[in-house]
Amino acid sequence: MNLILLFPDDFVSENRVRLTGRRLEHVMNVHRAAAGDVLTVGVVDGQLGRGVVLSLDPLELEVTLDRHPPPALPLTLVVALPRPKVLNRIVAATASMGVRRLCLINAWRVEKSYWSSPRLSPDNLRAQSILGIEQSRDTILPDITTHRFFRKFVEEELPPGDSRRLVAHPAATEPLPRNVSEHVTLVIGPEGGFIEAELASLDRAGFAAVTLGERILRTETAIAAAVGRMF
Amino acid sequence: MNLILLFPDDFVSENRVRLTGRRLEHVMNVHRAAAGDVLTVGVVDGQLGRGVVLSLDPLELEVTLDRHPPPALPLTLVVALPRPKVLNRIVAATASMGVRRLCLINAWRVEKSYWSSPRLSPDNLRAQSILGIEQSRDTILPDITTHRFFRKFVEEELPPGDSRRLVAHPAATEPLPRNVSEHVTLVIGPEGGFIEAELASLDRAGFAAVTLGERILRTETAIAAAVGRMF
Repeated sequence: MNLILLFPDDFVSENRVRLTGRRLEHVMNVHRAAAGDVLTVGVVDGQLGRGVVLSLDPLELEVTLDRHPPPALPLTLVVALPRPKVLNRIVAATASMGVRRLCLINAWRVEKSYWSSPRLSPDNLRAQSILGIEQSRDTILPDITTHRFFRKFVEEELPPGDSRRLVAHPAATEPLPRNVSEHVTLVIGPEGGFIEAELASLDRAGFAAVTLGERILRTETAIAAAVGRMF
Repeated sequence: MNLILLFPDDFVSENRVRLTGRRLEHVMNVHRAAAGDVLTVGVVDGQLGRGVVLSLDPLELEVTLDRHPPPALPLTLVVALPRPKVLNRIVAATASMGVRRLCLINAWRVEKSYWSSPRLSPDNLRAQSILGIEQSRDTILPDITTHRFFRKFVEEELPPGDSRRLVAHPAATEPLPRNVSEHVTLVIGPEGGFIEAELASLDRAGFAAVTLGERILRTETAIAAAVGRMF
């Protein structure tokens, strides 16, 4: 928690917040804060700044908000739904990197049972996103959507707008581009990859197959490596 | 397990192996292999190839080894010892990306208790590395060393050789270089970062401070993003 994320309900007056729950525990037990200490704060969907500890019981801060959050990545990330065990990490990591649009989609090699995981609840996706932006000192939560039908997603539900369309595929010959300036929509397949019919469907929708190299990486590693390479 | 990693003891004759343990279970339960099926195999520290299933009980393959493993990254990665919970993932992920030299070092902000984690045992580090190279279809295990004394590491124990020395530091102004061709030694600090004395020590040893951006990323995310950006 490199930033204390504030919500409208925390404000007891214009410049004063009272912290509860997880943030209260963190400030008391990890920061071991004392009156006068200065913490990095940010208001959800708003600005960053500093919070001076006024009192410990209740824990209140006087906040000054004077900086914009770091810029978003010009990236829409489309990921075949990963196994529940890694979903939380992927959601937090992508939020931390500044991905503001994440689409979790079905694919032939996504196990059906993954779709009934409680980790797909909006509350959990939001909680994991909060962990991500607290880590990277951002205030903007990503927009995360789920799409149960691959073809419908590709043909009808893909976020509109001008965007360079790429699909990561280990067997592609074209490398993932470096240092891109335009907006990118990047699709990452499931463990085992997309099947041919899915690749054909993406090809028809204008997705160029690109490779991160001959090594097959785990989804979370591939996402971070792709982001590092492109932006 | 995108590759069945073979060890000298598995060979019952020159071209024939018998699989046991975790690999046996994987081939039977995940691949649901039948006689005649072809699997990707590789001999530890050796070549890759294919293994044709000859029999299921015992599980024996006839192997043909005819390809080199993917090239290593020209990178020595130095990481302040992470919390045990994430150590396994970092070891597996770095091995999967082709990092062949990983130094786990102490730093002021590394909690002392991390050094008594059983996860630091050579057996566990090797087991996690095996998971990583099985994932990415490599056969070469990384060399992983631990260094309890920061200054001694920087002044005496750093692997010798010509290498561009970089330390990732969020407050640096110089960006991490892209698309480098020379060998790099990259140092990644602990949660909370290096202290000034440590940065000064690295500076004296020729490490240039570079940044991955203003976002503070988790160690595992930062490593993959840095690798994606540099190579």
